[in-house]
Amino acid sequence: MDREHISKDKTILLRQKYIGPSCKLFFKSDPIKIVRASGQYMFSETGERYLDCINNVAHVGHCHPKVVEAGNKQAALLNTNSRFLHDNLVLYAERLAALFPDPLKVLFMVNSGSEANDLALRLAQAHTKQKDVIVLDHAYHGHVMSLIDISPYKFNHLGPDAKPDWVHVASVPDRYRGKYRDTEHSLDELSTLYAQDVEDQIQNIRSSGKGISCFISESLQSCGGQIITPPGYLREVYKHVRNSGGLCIADEVQVGFGRVGSHWWAFQLAGEDVVPDIVTIGKPMGNGHPVAAVVTTYEIAKSFAGLGVEYFNTYGGNPVSCAIANAVIDVIETENLRENATKVGNYLLSRFTILMTKYQLIGDVRGVGMFIGIELVKDRSTKEPATAEAKHAITRAKQEKVLLSVDGPNENVIKFKPPMVFSLEDADHLVNILDRIFGEIDDSRQVEKLTEKELIKRINGASMS
Amino acid sequence: MDREHISKDKTILLRQKYIGPSCKLFFKSDPIKIVRASGQYMFSETGERYLDCINNVAHVGHCHPKVVEAGNKQAALLNTNSRFLHDNLVLYAERLAALFPDPLKVLFMVNSGSEANDLALRLAQAHTKQKDVIVLDHAYHGHVMSLIDISPYKFNHLGPDAKPDWVHVASVPDRYRGKYRDTEHSLDELSTLYAQDVEDQIQNIRSSGKGISCFISESLQSCGGQIITPPGYLREVYKHVRNSGGLCIADEVQVGFGRVGSHWWAFQLAGEDVVPDIVTIGKPMGNGHPVAAVVTTYEIAKSFAGLGVEYFNTYGGNPVSCAIANAVIDVIETENLRENATKVGNYLLSRFTILMTKYQLIGDVRGVGMFIGIELVKDRSTKEPATAEAKHAITRAKQEKVLLSVDGPNENVIKFKPPMVFSLEDADHLVNILDRIFGEIDDSRQVEKLTEKELIKRINGASMS
Repeated sequence: MDREHISKDKTILLRQKYIGPSCKLFFKSDPIKIVRASGQYMFSETGERYLDCINNVAHVGHCHPKVVEAGNKQAALLNTNSRFLHDNLVLYAERLAALFPDPLKVLFMVNSGSEANDLALRLAQAHTKQKDVIVLDHAYHGHVMSLIDISPYKFNHLGPDAKPDWVHVASVPDRYRGKYRDTEHSLDELSTLYAQDVEDQIQNIRSSGKGISCFISESLQSCGGQIITPPGYLREVYKHVRNSGGLCIADEVQVGFGRVGSHWWAFQLAGEDVVPDIVTIGKPMGNGHPVAAVVTTYEIAKSFAGLGVEYFNTYGGNPVSCAIANAVIDVIETENLRENATKVGNYLLSRFTILMTKYQLIGDVRGVGMFIGIELVKDRSTKEPATAEAKHAITRAKQEKVLLSVDGPNENVIKFKPPMVFSLEDADHLVNILDRIFGEIDDSRQVEKLTEKELIKRINGASMS
Repeated sequence: MDREHISKDKTILLRQKYIGPSCKLFFKSDPIKIVRASGQYMFSETGERYLDCINNVAHVGHCHPKVVEAGNKQAALLNTNSRFLHDNLVLYAERLAALFPDPLKVLFMVNSGSEANDLALRLAQAHTKQKDVIVLDHAYHGHVMSLIDISPYKFNHLGPDAKPDWVHVASVPDRYRGKYRDTEHSLDELSTLYAQDVEDQIQNIRSSGKGISCFISESLQSCGGQIITPPGYLREVYKHVRNSGGLCIADEVQVGFGRVGSHWWAFQLAGEDVVPDIVTIGKPMGNGHPVAAVVTTYEIAKSFAGLGVEYFNTYGGNPVSCAIANAVIDVIETENLRENATKVGNYLLSRFTILMTKYQLIGDVRGVGMFIGIELVKDRSTKEPATAEAKHAITRAKQEKVLLSVDGPNENVIKFKPPMVFSLEDADHLVNILDRIFGEIDDSRQVEKLTEKELIKRINGASMS
């Protein structure tokens, strides 16, 4: 349907009545109704066009015709489970394996990043015969129970007892706001210091007589605030983890499939010799279709099979999911989207960095490819998070038909991870809009000394204009 | 692709090389390659037509054109997450809610039955603030870690310590082979006795000072061997569970959406006054597309929201999944598939029952609608499971181009849960084939007294002819 069936008010009413209230809307006091989308643009029921700067699932562009066609053709022909032989599954597996370094060659296909990370944990625990897991602070790995358990981003909000005793939290290697900072240390030192933090956790676990199943981290932390991992970090961490007998899991659900531009996978930013034992992939994999996967080594897959329990996933690896996933790789390659990510990403980073010279509000600009964070602060020396300002900025951007959102533990990081077809023109438009909005905020703060309450009032006034 | 891309041998080779060995093929020594499917038929790469008697996912028939069209149209228009308003989600929620009794009106949409059952557990634990769960023996509720924990079908194979101490296993209400049997008790007595088994678990939990979060069961146990729950059972169990402060979860992932014919949901077989607190649905919901859901009460959804943690599911409730799920309900209604399930199911039950008079091999025939089990035994008095014979029967059926499989803890129950378009002609064909196969087996056994080894040899000989 290219139009509404019911009025927006009715949609909101039915949603309140029938959908679990834990499922949140963007801009919940004035949510957006979207009826169609194409490329990096989404269109409301009134025909307004929004520039999508945040949807890392619609990776090759919303409703890419080649991806849609591949899925549609296969859906009309066959869509069944992987207990039957089908070429789509094995040809996709072969193609995907070629995008990973040895020995990452064995695939398990599932329906979501959550299913992938859950299975990754099972693989690690089966292979090592250990349970304990080391995670990074603020990490988010998925919504099923096993992953809430290892996601400080979630369990930090569930009370002091929410962290299980087999989960161990290491500091996130955040050079700007973390335990160690780039104002005091070189990037190399940061890598070593933060890796030592993981090693300290390992020693804690060992001293209590337990072993380590795995270390899991997003290769670039997303929900935690668009953190750019110091280049040497994973190499050192993986060394520590392996010395302790643990496995290394790279969660590439949000950042994989070329988002970083220079490589297919963000862990590859650490160097060719840095290879995880297990990689999970998802969101961009099906451009919106529910498909995800675990990629691992033959040895680990064999340990898992050694449990003697079949792994059956009803839809995992069905011919439609594989046709769609295959078309996504086609488009990334034929439309040179990794090259585009590098070009547009670098351009944006340079323009955002120039904005930093204009606005004290911007505490940090960081990113790689189409993965960028702009961290807002009230004061550059204290780094007090500008949470209200960040919220205001995205609300104002929405009025300008630019979709952004905030993330990070202080909700003060504006995140940018758009469809990979985002263009230089889109980048200019985005920066110009943010320039105006940051100007409004900085003006309103610098003319007078305002209390936070007054600022919010002022901001709300501005957003009415 | 309506044909092979690579030879079957190559498909097998690539599968061995690239797909996790825990992912099993049907008939692994001679697997089937399927390239297209329509209705209740699947077609191999050489054009052979198989009658599908087991795929409860392709609910309204493989590749139903109306379902395919609904998905394809929406995929070309918009496929994004539920943080934006969209009519497909709320209209589907409204329509689905109308198929459930009060107060089951609040929906959470997810991607798989596993995600649904995992969320159901989270809801129950959030609402009751208790952790302990009562499950039925041989139950299977999904492949993620939290569900392996509550699935004896899985954890029974993982060693003696695999059952967590917060999981409590009650006897499955199997009137044929269970703890209490219909040879000694009326159906009413069986309901009461098996419900008392759950009550005993409740008392165990309470006596150790703990509370109960929930009782979860498939309304008809599937993997456990196509068990038909005694009609009064759920009413009594739900009463016990609620008296203890626990919630009642009906897992309808395999048996929902009208498979039982007379009702939309199998729990409704227990009577109009028997209403679970949480229902999970999946497999048939999207006819092969990955979509599933949790349906619950507003009170429980509110308790979950009270945790203060958002529930976000990347693909859950996206416009494509909802369009497909909506079309599935359309087809069930317009093609009167529930009526067909009753008609064909009853016909099959009567014909299978007649087969019982011919073959001692058939120990039990049970079913409702398009959910039927034929339990094979070596001896009707001892009920010794005829596991090898069951395996042989499905292998022979495969040679006759009829797809069946076995289930149950003894792998001796031939299961029947086909696409709901299965016709009377298909039913006749199926029964005639099984008649012939059972005849071969019974003949080979009754002429001489054979050891199991000799029998298998004989059987293998027959299957070559």
